[in-house]
Amino acid sequence: MTQPRFLPLAEAQAPFFVGVDVGGTSIKIGLVDELGRTLGFSRIPTEPELGPEAACERIGNEVRRTIAAAGLTLPYVARVGLGTPGTMDVVSGKLIHPHNLPGWHEFGIRDRLAHHTQLPVSYANDANAAAYGEFWVGSGRDFHSLVLLTLGTGVGCGIIIGDLTIVGENYHGAECGHIIIDYREDARPCPCGLRGHLEGYASATAVVKRTDEALANGRKSSLAGRIARGQELSPLMVAEEAEAGDTLATEIVMETAAFVGIGAASIMHTIDPSGVLLGGAMTFGGEGSELGRRFLARVKEEVSRRALPVPAAKTKIGFASLGGDAGYIGAAGIARVEYRRK
Amino acid sequence: MTQPRFLPLAEAQAPFFVGVDVGGTSIKIGLVDELGRTLGFSRIPTEPELGPEAACERIGNEVRRTIAAAGLTLPYVARVGLGTPGTMDVVSGKLIHPHNLPGWHEFGIRDRLAHHTQLPVSYANDANAAAYGEFWVGSGRDFHSLVLLTLGTGVGCGIIIGDLTIVGENYHGAECGHIIIDYREDARPCPCGLRGHLEGYASATAVVKRTDEALANGRKSSLAGRIARGQELSPLMVAEEAEAGDTLATEIVMETAAFVGIGAASIMHTIDPSGVLLGGAMTFGGEGSELGRRFLARVKEEVSRRALPVPAAKTKIGFASLGGDAGYIGAAGIARVEYRRK
Repeated sequence: MTQPRFLPLAEAQAPFFVGVDVGGTSIKIGLVDELGRTLGFSRIPTEPELGPEAACERIGNEVRRTIAAAGLTLPYVARVGLGTPGTMDVVSGKLIHPHNLPGWHEFGIRDRLAHHTQLPVSYANDANAAAYGEFWVGSGRDFHSLVLLTLGTGVGCGIIIGDLTIVGENYHGAECGHIIIDYREDARPCPCGLRGHLEGYASATAVVKRTDEALANGRKSSLAGRIARGQELSPLMVAEEAEAGDTLATEIVMETAAFVGIGAASIMHTIDPSGVLLGGAMTFGGEGSELGRRFLARVKEEVSRRALPVPAAKTKIGFASLGGDAGYIGAAGIARVEYRRK
Repeated sequence: MTQPRFLPLAEAQAPFFVGVDVGGTSIKIGLVDELGRTLGFSRIPTEPELGPEAACERIGNEVRRTIAAAGLTLPYVARVGLGTPGTMDVVSGKLIHPHNLPGWHEFGIRDRLAHHTQLPVSYANDANAAAYGEFWVGSGRDFHSLVLLTLGTGVGCGIIIGDLTIVGENYHGAECGHIIIDYREDARPCPCGLRGHLEGYASATAVVKRTDEALANGRKSSLAGRIARGQELSPLMVAEEAEAGDTLATEIVMETAAFVGIGAASIMHTIDPSGVLLGGAMTFGGEGSELGRRFLARVKEEVSRRALPVPAAKTKIGFASLGGDAGYIGAAGIARVEYRRK
C-alpha cells in the first residue's frame, strides 16, 4: 500500500468525509476532504474473532481519534462511507455472508457503525468502493465510466458508469471474477466451485496452480530450485524469477496477462467503459516495475486481439493509481455522493 | 411479428410519441401513447439502395400518414424515437457503418429525420430500443433492470438499468453477442472475424454450422433426408425436425439453449439485472410452443449450473413479449424519457 500523504487542514476544502474499508485482516480509516484528498489515516486490526459489534465500537473510537488528530471535530464531518467484502444487502445495510469475516453473518453493520460514530453512514461493496475511488481521484478521474479489476487472491471488480455504481439487483453486480471465459467441461475450477470463471485463470491462486502444474509436467525453471530449498511457491516468487529472466515464470506472468485481457474484452463488450483499470498485488509491480509494464503491454495486446475494432482502439487500459487507499477514499466518495443528493 | 392491436384514440393518453425502427429490409413506424400503447402502425420497405435521404423523406411522409390515420395531428406528437442498427454516434445522431444498410455510412440520420418529420428526434441503437420497449411495457415491465438477448442471424443485446440504457462510451455497450465464452485458439469463429464469441455458438448462423458439422461427421438425422431432397438447411428446419422428435435436431436446439445460458450467466455476473429476456426468431416459437418452452427450460438449467447461487436463484429468465414491435415501441419510449427530462 502506498502511504498517504496527508493534506494540511489549512489547504483542505469542507465538507469532510470519513472512509472505512473493512478487510479480513485490517480496517483502514481515512479522513478525506471534498476533493478526495486524505487529511488523516489509520489502520487497525480487524480481529474478526471478536465479532462485528466490537469492531464497530473500535472503528468508532478510531474515527474520532483520526478526526481529532487532523485538528477537526465531529460536526465538520458530513458522512461516513463504509465498504465491506462479500455478500451484503446494501439497502438494509447488512452483511450477509462475508467469507473472510467468519461469524459476521447477517449483521446490520451500517446502522451499528452509525451508532458508534454518531454519523450517518453510506454503505457499499468494497470492490465498488475501490472503483469509485479510482473514478473520483485516481487513474479514472478523467473517465466517464470505468471497470476496475483488482487482481489478488481472487479477481475483484467494480463498475462505475457516470455517478452510477453497478451494484446489481441482488448486490452481485460487477462479480466479473466469475464471468465464463471457457465454457468447456474440462475448464479450470474457480475457488467458488464452478468452472471456467476468469478467477480460475487470473487470480494469485490460479497463478500458483498453473505454475505447479507446469513444474509437475517437467518444465525446467529456477522456481524448482527455490521450492527444493523449502520455499513455498507464491506469485511473488514467480514474479521474482520472471524478473530474473526465468522462461517458465515469465510465461506464467504473460499468460496471466492474456487471461486478464480476455476477461477485459468480454466486459468491454458488455459495458463499453471509458477505461479498464488494473489494481491489486497481481499487477506484478505495476507502472513502477519493468515486469509490471510488460504485464500491462501483454494485457493490451490481448485486448486488441479479442475486442471489436472500436473499443479495441478507444478503451483506455491502465493501472489503478490509489493502491490500497482506493477502498477508503472511494467509500468516502460514495458518502459524498449520497450527501450531495440529500 | 405480432400484429399490433390498435388502441382507439378515445382511450389513449397524451402526449403521443412516434417510434421508428429501421432494419435492413423494412422500416417499422408506430404511433404510441404515454403508456406505450400502439394507436397506429405502418411498415415500409427500406430500399437501402435509394440512400438514407430518400428513406428519411419516405419515413416523414409515412409518419404523417400514420398520425392522420389515428385521427391526430402533428402538434399532438411530442417527439420521435429512432432506432437504427450497426455502429453509430448517438450524440451527434450519425450512422457510422451499418453493415446491413450499405452506402448509409457517416449519415446524420437523426437531424435529417427531424427535418422530414418536423419533430424533435431521439436516437438509439435498435437493440437498446428493443430492450427499452420490453422494459417499458413488455416482459420486463416489473423489472428495475434487464438484459434482452435477441437471438436471430446474430445475437443482439440491450441492457437497461433503471432509466439508464447502457449505450457505452463508444456506442459499443451491450454488444454481448461478442462476449468470449471460449478463449481457446480452436474456439468457433464469430461472423465478426474473432473467435469464441457467444454469437459464434448461439446465432442462427451458428446453428446451421453446428448442424452441418454433425451431419458431415455422419450423425443420423431426418434433416439429412430433407437436404437430400434439395431443401436448404435452416434453423426453422432444425426446429421442425426437433419438434418431430429427431434426436440430432433436438440436441442442436438444446445445445443452443445451453450456450445462451452460459452467455446469460456471464452477463448476470457483470450487471446482476432483475431479469434476462430472450427474443428473436431463434427462441424456437417461444412461450407458445412446446419446443420453445423446452428451450427456455434448458437455458434456465444452464444458468443455474453456471451462475453464483444468489443470481442463479433470483434472476428471472423468460421470453420477451413484444416480438418485432419492441423496436419501435422502445424507440418511442426513449423519446418519452428525453421529452420528460426537458
